[in-house]
Amino acid sequence: FLFGIEILLRPTSSTALIYRCHGEPSQVTLKLPPLRSTSVLVKMLAAPINPSDINMIQGTYAILPDLPAVGGNEGVGQVIEVGIEVKTIKVGDWVIPRDAGLGMWQTAVVLSADDLVTVPSDIPVLSAATLGVNPCTALRMLSDFEDLKPGDTVIQNAANSAVGQAVIQIAAAKGVQTVNVVRDRPNLQKLTDGLKAMGATCVITEETLRRPEMKEIFKSYPRPKLALNGVGGKSATELLRHLQSGGTMVTYGGMAKQPVTVPVSALIFKNVKIRGFWVTQWKRDHKHDDEALHSMLEELCTLIRTGKLSSPACTQVGMLDFHKALHSAMKPYTSMKQVLVM
Amino acid sequence: FLFGIEILLRPTSSTALIYRCHGEPSQVTLKLPPLRSTSVLVKMLAAPINPSDINMIQGTYAILPDLPAVGGNEGVGQVIEVGIEVKTIKVGDWVIPRDAGLGMWQTAVVLSADDLVTVPSDIPVLSAATLGVNPCTALRMLSDFEDLKPGDTVIQNAANSAVGQAVIQIAAAKGVQTVNVVRDRPNLQKLTDGLKAMGATCVITEETLRRPEMKEIFKSYPRPKLALNGVGGKSATELLRHLQSGGTMVTYGGMAKQPVTVPVSALIFKNVKIRGFWVTQWKRDHKHDDEALHSMLEELCTLIRTGKLSSPACTQVGMLDFHKALHSAMKPYTSMKQVLVM
Repeated sequence: FLFGIEILLRPTSSTALIYRCHGEPSQVTLKLPPLRSTSVLVKMLAAPINPSDINMIQGTYAILPDLPAVGGNEGVGQVIEVGIEVKTIKVGDWVIPRDAGLGMWQTAVVLSADDLVTVPSDIPVLSAATLGVNPCTALRMLSDFEDLKPGDTVIQNAANSAVGQAVIQIAAAKGVQTVNVVRDRPNLQKLTDGLKAMGATCVITEETLRRPEMKEIFKSYPRPKLALNGVGGKSATELLRHLQSGGTMVTYGGMAKQPVTVPVSALIFKNVKIRGFWVTQWKRDHKHDDEALHSMLEELCTLIRTGKLSSPACTQVGMLDFHKALHSAMKPYTSMKQVLVM
Repeated sequence: FLFGIEILLRPTSSTALIYRCHGEPSQVTLKLPPLRSTSVLVKMLAAPINPSDINMIQGTYAILPDLPAVGGNEGVGQVIEVGIEVKTIKVGDWVIPRDAGLGMWQTAVVLSADDLVTVPSDIPVLSAATLGVNPCTALRMLSDFEDLKPGDTVIQNAANSAVGQAVIQIAAAKGVQTVNVVRDRPNLQKLTDGLKAMGATCVITEETLRRPEMKEIFKSYPRPKLALNGVGGKSATELLRHLQSGGTMVTYGGMAKQPVTVPVSALIFKNVKIRGFWVTQWKRDHKHDDEALHSMLEELCTLIRTGKLSSPACTQVGMLDFHKALHSAMKPYTSMKQVLVM
């Protein structure tokens, strides 16, 4: 049966969203290269549009592929054919990329087996497509900087981002409380209810974060050991004010396009630690540590299977509608993750 | 002989520089309390005026003693008499305080033996008087944040401060290169020569630090693993630019009275770590770890005995001239450490 599928579905070309210069991609048909002994042919199933994908196309990201390049840094595909030397991946497996810059916005792709990692196919396809960047970022930040115990508190801004939502759910599963900061908006109560349903301990606005009443909140929970910053600027400085002595603030994004400003006294007398996290670097640093990668993905998939971790609300878009999807992804206050389905 | 000294020199009162409110201290005569079984009577020999002493008097420091208080957080004294239960300290020993806030600007003091640590009396009295704060800060910052190996580079601003000079000398003794940033001034060449004589690899001004030519410097030495920041503001941000990926910047002072501003990209994509250090907190954290304290002091005394670490240039001032000394210590660009001699 699998052999049948292999023959029937084997594509010879791929419909891809490529960009020849920094700006916007266009849809082209690419001839797939022949399969080498160490390669894998993958039929893509779904690939999200993340902020870093857009920054990469615009040429403002930290790593930029040689042009022309296919857009998209994550996504899930099903393996159609494997080279004769490939041992780690079988036909029918679901796979996600191990690194950024591999070009996931296409209907089929031939990649080295080393560039792919298998994921279980018993989780929703949208969860698999969005597993490798944001939930991994959330899990690592909750695991690698402070030793969080049940009852401890984490404070974060950008709480409604894909990372923020994953932080809420993973923390809740660990019994860790989250103080979640979001920007004020018309539908704030709905957003608050949604985040609380995910497990958020409390949800406050950026304005509340700056007010003296914040002290009241930390009468109910211990002061945070860990602050997660996806914004920068004033929001980051405010998070810092509430951190306990010796705590850590981890920056993973800079939505406000402003640097992180740290009072000298917080460093010297409160011993706060200011760090950064980039999941792509983590994956590169652990390239030869499959155990670490698999155990992280397994932990996330267990949370997904038990209903404790869901992907952000997604809008599924066909490849032909990519222009609309890109523009929707760039709108402020967007809560819907745009996902290309192939 | 020691018994004779003990009887002859035993003071019953102390001439002390106290402050009753935050502002400036005045000279008073204090009656010494009776010696308890766990106390030690110390005749003070010398005590420096550090920036943190002045901040404490002004009421702007992170820890403030109850008023009235005797000024001065460090200094060396000789033990005149010990309580019957004191085992760790003998008559004749030189001692320095274990913590800040004990009031060293006085001719004699009765303290709990637990508040004091002995130092060798074969080092210069000015070295002993200035051992406990600045050289300890320098040694810990060079030891506790990055694993520095001979040939590695450290970059620091405020390189002519007491900490800065200790950093240069301790680093040189370890074979670690130092790029030293100082503010431009009329006698710059003399200052540069002086720091180079201490072992500075190179000395540059804040203005040079901002120029593109800085790249040339790092053709000769590896990029710094460690940046030491006693200034804050722009100077700190500039230090950061030159740090290698994964390196650490440690802030121990904020002379510019401006916060440390960190680009989000440096945190995420260069994985720089932003930390702070406060030697008083280190001593409190190691209160029950005499081994750590003694081994640090012994390492510094070995450097002093072998001529590798000298105290900053000192102006010795009698207790009566304390007003002049305080004002000299507060002047900008001051290179002379004011030390009260009793």
